[in-house]
Amino acid sequence: MTLTRPTFKQTTLENGLTVIAEINPEAKSVALGYFCKTGSRDETPEISGVSHFLEHMLFKGTARRDSLEVNLEFDQMGAQYNAFTSEENTVYYGAVLPEFAPRLLALWTDLMRPALRQQDFDTEKKVILEEIALYQDRPNVMLFDWGRARYFAGHPLGNSVLGTAQSISALTRDQMAAYQAQRYAPGNLVLVLAGKVDWERTLEQVAELTASWARGQAERAYPALNPAVGELREPYPKATQTYLAVFAPGVSAQDPRRYAAHILANILGEEGNSRLHWALSDKGLVESVGAGIDEADQAGFYYVYAQTDPANEETVKAVVREELERLERFGVRQEELERAKNKLATALVFAGETPMQRLMSVGINYVYNQTYEPLSEVARKVEAVTLADVNGLLESRPFNQSFFYSLVPA
Amino acid sequence: MTLTRPTFKQTTLENGLTVIAEINPEAKSVALGYFCKTGSRDETPEISGVSHFLEHMLFKGTARRDSLEVNLEFDQMGAQYNAFTSEENTVYYGAVLPEFAPRLLALWTDLMRPALRQQDFDTEKKVILEEIALYQDRPNVMLFDWGRARYFAGHPLGNSVLGTAQSISALTRDQMAAYQAQRYAPGNLVLVLAGKVDWERTLEQVAELTASWARGQAERAYPALNPAVGELREPYPKATQTYLAVFAPGVSAQDPRRYAAHILANILGEEGNSRLHWALSDKGLVESVGAGIDEADQAGFYYVYAQTDPANEETVKAVVREELERLERFGVRQEELERAKNKLATALVFAGETPMQRLMSVGINYVYNQTYEPLSEVARKVEAVTLADVNGLLESRPFNQSFFYSLVPA
Repeated sequence: MTLTRPTFKQTTLENGLTVIAEINPEAKSVALGYFCKTGSRDETPEISGVSHFLEHMLFKGTARRDSLEVNLEFDQMGAQYNAFTSEENTVYYGAVLPEFAPRLLALWTDLMRPALRQQDFDTEKKVILEEIALYQDRPNVMLFDWGRARYFAGHPLGNSVLGTAQSISALTRDQMAAYQAQRYAPGNLVLVLAGKVDWERTLEQVAELTASWARGQAERAYPALNPAVGELREPYPKATQTYLAVFAPGVSAQDPRRYAAHILANILGEEGNSRLHWALSDKGLVESVGAGIDEADQAGFYYVYAQTDPANEETVKAVVREELERLERFGVRQEELERAKNKLATALVFAGETPMQRLMSVGINYVYNQTYEPLSEVARKVEAVTLADVNGLLESRPFNQSFFYSLVPA
Repeated sequence: MTLTRPTFKQTTLENGLTVIAEINPEAKSVALGYFCKTGSRDETPEISGVSHFLEHMLFKGTARRDSLEVNLEFDQMGAQYNAFTSEENTVYYGAVLPEFAPRLLALWTDLMRPALRQQDFDTEKKVILEEIALYQDRPNVMLFDWGRARYFAGHPLGNSVLGTAQSISALTRDQMAAYQAQRYAPGNLVLVLAGKVDWERTLEQVAELTASWARGQAERAYPALNPAVGELREPYPKATQTYLAVFAPGVSAQDPRRYAAHILANILGEEGNSRLHWALSDKGLVESVGAGIDEADQAGFYYVYAQTDPANEETVKAVVREELERLERFGVRQEELERAKNKLATALVFAGETPMQRLMSVGINYVYNQTYEPLSEVARKVEAVTLADVNGLLESRPFNQSFFYSLVPA
């Protein structure tokens, strides 16, 4: 049996653009895309939502292509592609058969320098406003959008990705262009490739395509965190259920303890089999319950969410409090640790079987840590987590600093 | 570059069970599951919905395991698993790391001989009835459930997968047990494996696990088709939109013209870029529109669906009729064919990158054709489709025999 290990390559072009690739000659496709280290946390209140709006605008075309041509070109390549904007990242990604890789690279690279035409801007503004209105009808989405804002209490990590109807309505094309020019500077972008990559050809091509890009870097502010503690209930006129989110201090994407933190969150609240599952779902007290960890840039938090009949609200909160307290007081058991490690190691393999999946995982890790970890190394780190590592996370008593946020029927 | 081709193995055990595997030593996981050639088309009206209900019951346990033990065991393996029931197949599938493959095989094999305990049956009946009630609220689901029934006009291919509240309420545990004993006979099951499979060990293990299974075969009836033609509008009290489905005679899963038929359906109605997209979506006349082909056992049909504001119903139907007529009269163009072939070939690669995906594709093709086609062979067949092949499908004027079915606000 020959198991070819992927190789990793990285370089930084003269204009400051970093290019990285996890090359697997046996893959049948190539995934490639741009990771821009920008998101709602990098916005001021006046331009709230600009990162996400800008992501939409990139598909409206460049000096060379209008939106119809952009669409047709993705289509002619048979590309699988998409983009997303989060609090900290704006990511454009796609996969094609190897013969189309140069064409996809040329298209994405062109899109990084969008035309931002006034007419497209005005049309797309309506789409964004409709999207904002639509999400207002979804308490499960607003729970985290509002909950984060309350929890981070003024810290930019609480900024909304979508922005508000007010901020989007007031936003001008020139404000967006200024933001784009600053945030999409080569020094703030990483071009990531995975799968059957021709590294030398890629480098030649991207150097040529970005030769005219002006050097530039973008900064991110890291103000001190002072998250909320306690409880906040807010009425939500459209809700018929009660939606609960609990936030507690976690670990950052740069923290070596993050694998232990994932395991801790799994033991607490993985859907299907976890402490909260047996204490709440299995007893029919909630429609759904879960826990996880959000690893952010130099910050992070654990979260618990639950959706329940309003009649059970107090019971559910009491059970969650009890489980968090029990976790902090007695820690986790060896047998729970082993099961969670197994599941996490397996999930890692399933999340790394295709170039598109590897693109995301290699890219996100690089943006936060400027390092590369092959899947085998991540699996090794998960395997190496000990009971002392997991229980060590509880010594600072994170859940004693929990913030219970709920949306309740008005 | 070494590109290891997968190898294919197949055998039939003494009890009549067929075992097939697409072995790829470089895969990081193993997918395996049972394909039972049974579904709603194999049901009589009295037991309508039994195949789907039975699929749920398999997870309730066996003589050896209760439902909690079944759940915990999947969980301990970190398995990704699920099951589905369609008109013609009931499929149980899962994927695990290679070291857990024997354990997953033992579990699925045990589940094929369920206990069907009366108490579990009574409890699960309520879940199924709730599922039926839930779907009544979803016109986009009922459109095809009811539309198929009207289109196939008494032929079992029009049978509902879910069944009705009446048939499920009246169903007894013994009726289900009799159906299970007959339809899950070894001769009507195929055990399918894909990925990093240990073939010799699998065969030894499955022979031992199924040694007590009594030989048996199940038949399927193939009555003559006499599908509806024309138009039917039905009021749907909960609808605020109009839901349209068009059915027309297509090709079967055994028909060598099926790749050409897929291409034809793509050209007509692929979402994003197709004749119907430009004629309807792009003009803002519909919320959504698409076309496809359903390849069944010795039968098949093309379908078109659209969702529109009731005010546009007549316009949308007229445009669909016009496009179908234009397609039949003038055929497709070389340039459309090339684009559709490219997209289909690419989609095939993306749908074949993981053992789980290969399991599904290899298994379904085997059930219908008792043959194995590597991905490269399927891609070759798609590439080989000519304009004459696609336009030849139109000579019988299938769309001249269309059935327009719509659910409209009451």
